[in-house]
Amino acid sequence: MTRCAAPAIRHLVIVGVGLIGGSFSLALQRACAIERITGVGRSPDNLRVAQARGIVHDWTHDVTEAVSDADFVLLATPVGSADAMLATIAPHLPEDAILSDVGSTKQSVIEAARRHLPDLTRFVPAHPLAGTEHSGAGAAFSELFQERWCLMTPLAGITDVGALDRVRAWWEAVGARVMCMDAEEHDELLAAVSHLPHVAAYAVVNCVSTLEKGGHDPFQFAAGGFRDFTRIASSSPEMWRDIALCNRRALLRKIDALQEALGEMRDALAHEDAEALLRLFSSARDARERWLDRYGMRGER
Amino acid sequence: MTRCAAPAIRHLVIVGVGLIGGSFSLALQRACAIERITGVGRSPDNLRVAQARGIVHDWTHDVTEAVSDADFVLLATPVGSADAMLATIAPHLPEDAILSDVGSTKQSVIEAARRHLPDLTRFVPAHPLAGTEHSGAGAAFSELFQERWCLMTPLAGITDVGALDRVRAWWEAVGARVMCMDAEEHDELLAAVSHLPHVAAYAVVNCVSTLEKGGHDPFQFAAGGFRDFTRIASSSPEMWRDIALCNRRALLRKIDALQEALGEMRDALAHEDAEALLRLFSSARDARERWLDRYGMRGER
Repeated sequence: MTRCAAPAIRHLVIVGVGLIGGSFSLALQRACAIERITGVGRSPDNLRVAQARGIVHDWTHDVTEAVSDADFVLLATPVGSADAMLATIAPHLPEDAILSDVGSTKQSVIEAARRHLPDLTRFVPAHPLAGTEHSGAGAAFSELFQERWCLMTPLAGITDVGALDRVRAWWEAVGARVMCMDAEEHDELLAAVSHLPHVAAYAVVNCVSTLEKGGHDPFQFAAGGFRDFTRIASSSPEMWRDIALCNRRALLRKIDALQEALGEMRDALAHEDAEALLRLFSSARDARERWLDRYGMRGER
Repeated sequence: MTRCAAPAIRHLVIVGVGLIGGSFSLALQRACAIERITGVGRSPDNLRVAQARGIVHDWTHDVTEAVSDADFVLLATPVGSADAMLATIAPHLPEDAILSDVGSTKQSVIEAARRHLPDLTRFVPAHPLAGTEHSGAGAAFSELFQERWCLMTPLAGITDVGALDRVRAWWEAVGARVMCMDAEEHDELLAAVSHLPHVAAYAVVNCVSTLEKGGHDPFQFAAGGFRDFTRIASSSPEMWRDIALCNRRALLRKIDALQEALGEMRDALAHEDAEALLRLFSSARDARERWLDRYGMRGER
């Protein structure tokens, strides 16, 4: 477990103290000095849990008041609320404060930032690739980002290098591996490896549900393979609705690609083309095995 | 761990000593007296592993010789080979021997049995819902069937009740929960909860692979959710080609249903219909959560 000393923070304001925001706070407190941490959210119950667990020192429902004293604001609300939140925050954000986010889609958040922030230089978009199917401050834990990617999508020629370096240092301090890339490429990649699998898992579960009406309950015979395959279908529908809408264009292309891939398998099956089926299944198996080997995913849970 | 004393076996012949056949042997030897266990297969290496691990006492490549002395033959080869294997076995099977199988599809095996067996009374089709993505005698372990379903699909009015009871007792002895149902219903249920998820997982991995060409490797950013979702895409392509072909009609219907479910989500997304998306995602999440609660799948791995 690597810990680098990260730049000190006077007043960290976490807007949305859930799994991601909460885990970030728990981990960062171990790695750098933070004078004060304020949590902003709607649910008093969740904020009380956050305070009791030492995730925040104090909390408020009033985001404008909170950010007006911050030197680092982490926007960790669902991506669907980014536009409204940025509109609310913008007039109250101190000039020298760094603003970052953890949104699962990056182009939509950057577009919202362009609409509302008078100065984009200290806005640093980021996305930690970490999460579980659980949510809320109660689910937060300091090891969440260990060995996980944090993809940063700074605005070419706009984002201040000093602000970028500080946000990068904070993410490295919580254990993440940081990589910078273009926001469009980020959204395309995540549509493939994250957003599409969620849509597919939700769709498969819905297919199985439609069988529930007569005879045996099909879920009764679903086993470990089905449980793992559908684990992501237990994720928050509200969060994934927002992600899907915010990454609409890329995700539509991926759904089309999946429809095509399924159609190819369907055709092979309908024509009893054993060779084609084997080729399609084998290429998938081989690609997954290469992935497990190449990125050391074997044996991990 | 319940162990019931099961009927003794004089000579068990296991045709196909892989994960299922091997695990069955390891588990059954703890629960009942078996004088002799013969393994039949093509790979000498695998059969030697089976012998070294105590899964079989002896082995042969000659299935006709092996079955001619058996009182219980377990057909545990991939479903695609059932027809040829039954044709080969049929003339050499002793009249009083019980023949059972473990095929993932039941109508196709029963059709093959009807074609080749002169007497169907002592043929007991069964399907243990257990497995891992690994295969071969080396992957076998005696706990594989603990608390797993073994679905039996006896032929109404034909299957001998005594033979059925003995096979049921053996499966219960290895830890399985046995349920009898119609073969057609079995194939429909399994198409939904097992065969369709495999096809979908293979298809999603193939979609991600097509992105590999330019820019970053998308697999690099695939995390735990993707690993679990695609675990079944590491399953044997040969085995799943056979299962898909043997359960072709039911699986085609399920692929159509999945295409429709994906199409519905695609439409909602294209029209930015947040309500419809939330409804579709929520119904899936709720169905999965009900499943976890109803069948005690929560917390299990």
